[in-house]
Amino acid sequence: MAHVQEKTAAIIVIGNEILTGKSQDENAGFLIGELYKLGIRLRRIVVIPDDVDEISRAVRECAAQFDYVFTSGGVGPTHDDLTIEGVARAFNRKMVRHAELAAMIRNYFGQGADEARMKMADAPEGAELIKGEGLRWPVLAVENVYVLPGVPEYFRSKFLAIRERFRSKPFHTRAVFTLEDEFDLAPRLNQVAADHPEVEIGSYPNFSSPDYRVKITLESKEAPAVERAFAALLSLLDSSSLVRTE
Amino acid sequence: MAHVQEKTAAIIVIGNEILTGKSQDENAGFLIGELYKLGIRLRRIVVIPDDVDEISRAVRECAAQFDYVFTSGGVGPTHDDLTIEGVARAFNRKMVRHAELAAMIRNYFGQGADEARMKMADAPEGAELIKGEGLRWPVLAVENVYVLPGVPEYFRSKFLAIRERFRSKPFHTRAVFTLEDEFDLAPRLNQVAADHPEVEIGSYPNFSSPDYRVKITLESKEAPAVERAFAALLSLLDSSSLVRTE
Repeated sequence: MAHVQEKTAAIIVIGNEILTGKSQDENAGFLIGELYKLGIRLRRIVVIPDDVDEISRAVRECAAQFDYVFTSGGVGPTHDDLTIEGVARAFNRKMVRHAELAAMIRNYFGQGADEARMKMADAPEGAELIKGEGLRWPVLAVENVYVLPGVPEYFRSKFLAIRERFRSKPFHTRAVFTLEDEFDLAPRLNQVAADHPEVEIGSYPNFSSPDYRVKITLESKEAPAVERAFAALLSLLDSSSLVRTE
Repeated sequence: MAHVQEKTAAIIVIGNEILTGKSQDENAGFLIGELYKLGIRLRRIVVIPDDVDEISRAVRECAAQFDYVFTSGGVGPTHDDLTIEGVARAFNRKMVRHAELAAMIRNYFGQGADEARMKMADAPEGAELIKGEGLRWPVLAVENVYVLPGVPEYFRSKFLAIRERFRSKPFHTRAVFTLEDEFDLAPRLNQVAADHPEVEIGSYPNFSSPDYRVKITLESKEAPAVERAFAALLSLLDSSSLVRTE
């Protein structure tokens, strides 16, 4: 499934408010669409509580397994904002006051730069600051981990400002909608999947509308491979049950 | 954070279609609300691809760490339906044809019970079938892992049919909405959190409307503990900036 040429990613959403339903996460949903359009293979989303051990474990694991890791949430000034510390622990780095960030905060808040505000300059030693067009505050990154805020407006503007550095070859996708039953399709579909291991084939039954009964998707970065699998699939389907292709 | 008397849960959402944005997950969002109302502490949500190794690893890890694990998706008849096999591997159990399930399938499909349909009777050895009012097909469970389908209508009806077995003491929650700035609040909030470790306190800034600037939540299964923390917090807040409490 993980094709050699693909860059992979994980999203770590941090926050008790998501796990208790006090807030609905919007950031993972947004990033799913962005990463897909960028040609990045998203391999995992994990939602965890505001707990520094859990954060550091998730970050360490994802950073080791995937090319890019994006965290969402847990970056404010209060006791439940533990993401930066979790990232530091994940990489066994000390937390230090980042000189450049500290200068930015002093510059912005002036006399109002009290300890709660200055704390926003604490970062893992050696953290990188990525500046983006139109961003007041940079994105903090440690190795392949990009720390983004939980507030959806800021999550989006920060990701959009750094997006182009992740752009890769896009996915090529085909879809087939049919009125055939998924059970009846299964043997043929399994055959096409076995014959075209380089193409990711998905089968999704639909029970909520009468338009079609199964949507089959075929996907890869190699368009010719997708087209070959698509042709092979079409040749095996009952053409009178075919609703449409995309 | 994990309080002794609380039962914990994890949700494992399985499906490439979620990670690529072809479908939006509705099941985790639904279950977040249900588990909260049942008094179950949801500790993790993980979304992973249709990959048997990843499924078995996630199931093994979550089953060992949490009281209940719910899986969503990957239970149909096609090559990308790997959840049941992943659960079997997580518990080192063989896949066997479940006699009772096989009889139900033969009974329902009659002459149409071909191999694709009979495959739905394959389950980890010793799997439990949980029957629920109004359910045509039982919920399959292995140890503390409950296997639910990805199609939202079926996910819901199956979970609702087995829901009562999970009911526990409910959470007691208070909320405070204020116009104070989160940076200014931070020292007082951190103090209340430190003084009331048995209460989970969250702080959520709001930038999308002018109604309030920070929402503070206080939560525990012990109502008196929440009320004590709530009173302590109110005594520290600027009353002229207080918008409302809940």
